[in-house]
Amino acid sequence: MNIQPLLPRSLSHEFIAHLDDDVLLIGMRSLLPFEVRSLASRSAEESAHAIRAMVTQGGGQLEVALWTLVMEARRHGKDMARMEEVRSLLVGARRTNTAVQRTLDGMWSELESLPSSSFASGVEDIVVTILEDQDANYLDMARFGSSLIEDGMGILTTCFAEHSFFLSLALARQEGRSFTVYSQETRPYLQGAHLTSPALAEMGYDHRLITDGMSAHVVSSGKVGIYMTASDNATRTGWVVNKVGTLASAIVCARYGVPYYAFSTGFDERFSSLEDFAVEYRSGDEVKACQGMRTTVDDVQAIYPAFDIVPPDLVAGIVTRGGIVK
Amino acid sequence: MNIQPLLPRSLSHEFIAHLDDDVLLIGMRSLLPFEVRSLASRSAEESAHAIRAMVTQGGGQLEVALWTLVMEARRHGKDMARMEEVRSLLVGARRTNTAVQRTLDGMWSELESLPSSSFASGVEDIVVTILEDQDANYLDMARFGSSLIEDGMGILTTCFAEHSFFLSLALARQEGRSFTVYSQETRPYLQGAHLTSPALAEMGYDHRLITDGMSAHVVSSGKVGIYMTASDNATRTGWVVNKVGTLASAIVCARYGVPYYAFSTGFDERFSSLEDFAVEYRSGDEVKACQGMRTTVDDVQAIYPAFDIVPPDLVAGIVTRGGIVK
Repeated sequence: MNIQPLLPRSLSHEFIAHLDDDVLLIGMRSLLPFEVRSLASRSAEESAHAIRAMVTQGGGQLEVALWTLVMEARRHGKDMARMEEVRSLLVGARRTNTAVQRTLDGMWSELESLPSSSFASGVEDIVVTILEDQDANYLDMARFGSSLIEDGMGILTTCFAEHSFFLSLALARQEGRSFTVYSQETRPYLQGAHLTSPALAEMGYDHRLITDGMSAHVVSSGKVGIYMTASDNATRTGWVVNKVGTLASAIVCARYGVPYYAFSTGFDERFSSLEDFAVEYRSGDEVKACQGMRTTVDDVQAIYPAFDIVPPDLVAGIVTRGGIVK
Repeated sequence: MNIQPLLPRSLSHEFIAHLDDDVLLIGMRSLLPFEVRSLASRSAEESAHAIRAMVTQGGGQLEVALWTLVMEARRHGKDMARMEEVRSLLVGARRTNTAVQRTLDGMWSELESLPSSSFASGVEDIVVTILEDQDANYLDMARFGSSLIEDGMGILTTCFAEHSFFLSLALARQEGRSFTVYSQETRPYLQGAHLTSPALAEMGYDHRLITDGMSAHVVSSGKVGIYMTASDNATRTGWVVNKVGTLASAIVCARYGVPYYAFSTGFDERFSSLEDFAVEYRSGDEVKACQGMRTTVDDVQAIYPAFDIVPPDLVAGIVTRGGIVK
């Protein structure tokens, strides 16, 4: 099943990352919804920089990393010293989302055993297989995700929950159920206002954009039946790492008996607890601006913990391709 | 005791509202911290418009309303039909904060009994007495408020908690205690970034500006010992109405055993519960912009409930001039 027609344009493979000859075109998520533009990357260094600068995010990091491998393989052939360099650049770009690391770890021995004569096309075959499997993974998750969405339900979400979430909505609608999505704007980068809400509008789904402080208002007024987000990391034991703001909303939902479900493309088996997981602290200056415009004076100090760690008692379930893990 | 030296400039009587001959100069809180400017009001209609447009807010609404009465009295003398019109314009400008209504109700019979010959100066005397009493009220509240601030404490706050809060901090510092204030930026109007954080920096208090979604991060990491806000309305039975975002933070604090205290200049005795209090719904377009710049596309629907209603089980105490009501 081709999932592309069920997704907004911002989640298409075409937009997220595609190779144009030897140049990787990375969809500039950071410019959406006002500009649809791609950034050209010609090396792993440029791709890593794009990830670090949040030109792309979430699942986009993995697609960019994979196509960067293909691009580097086309350029340098089977030069494993360079490929190791590429791997470490891509894994190190942003560490909280460990999908890049896990995927590269998983494919590396196959990559190493490719013959030099057809190295680039061999890498591309591996990447295409992984991405097809990823799409199938998204769709599997969405089958479970959509089963949680009841007719007439209000759905709270934070940041941009990407494919699994939008496919869940698409399947629920295909099955005739309607819903209203309450999308938190997600400061400081406003992914809710820039990505989620425009995508909801594009797909014709009923929605309301709210500020990050409004979750308790909508939840306490009984408008919300479920809280759904992506996750940047998750464990089989029920820990979830996701965009800062998720913990507050999960706590609010717990008070009003609204279940919180996170989508996970795969558990991080290295951890049984994420209590002490090292979340990324970004520069406080990013909090002191909105869309490039400063929001306060220079003397003000700010902090920017980029992620929240949500403990298992606040997580009703984690939606995976194998089912909903409670 | 003159409280002015203990306050940031944005909370001075001079800035908030003062009469320059027959023109009321209203400090444009909405332009802070980037511009220090006043709006000239020449009538109750203009003052009401300024309140509705959020040129001034919170306690500033009452100061503007009171000086508008003096201005109108100077212009029209004892014309009680006009004064009733003025009263209804000022009370009706924004209804969630009922201090204007309660204060005007309380002074009206005294105003009505003023002789025509000295009406304007009589109104001014009443107003000056009320404002002096208000300053004494703030200081009384701050004595109780500062007693809650322990040395080394982290203090979470939302929006701009004005005089009582800043005086509490000033008294705690006078008594040798240090603290760190975590100030939520408070979208959509960013009063935390525009007013609270710059005022904290101006007073030399240790502080961190955070987005509205970060309260759970700082509270769950054990950095916060108390949550303090102003209130737009409160009852003796422990209900608090305050800026949207307050409920989420109060729920987060409850989970981690951090007490929430709200300052109240006076209880609204008409209500014993605020559960069904009609909060102001403003235009969703205000959520779709930040500092005048749009944050999303036109097709996106947004809502803007301006206030949260916090139930008594989340309120550790309400700080009043008479003490802390639990």
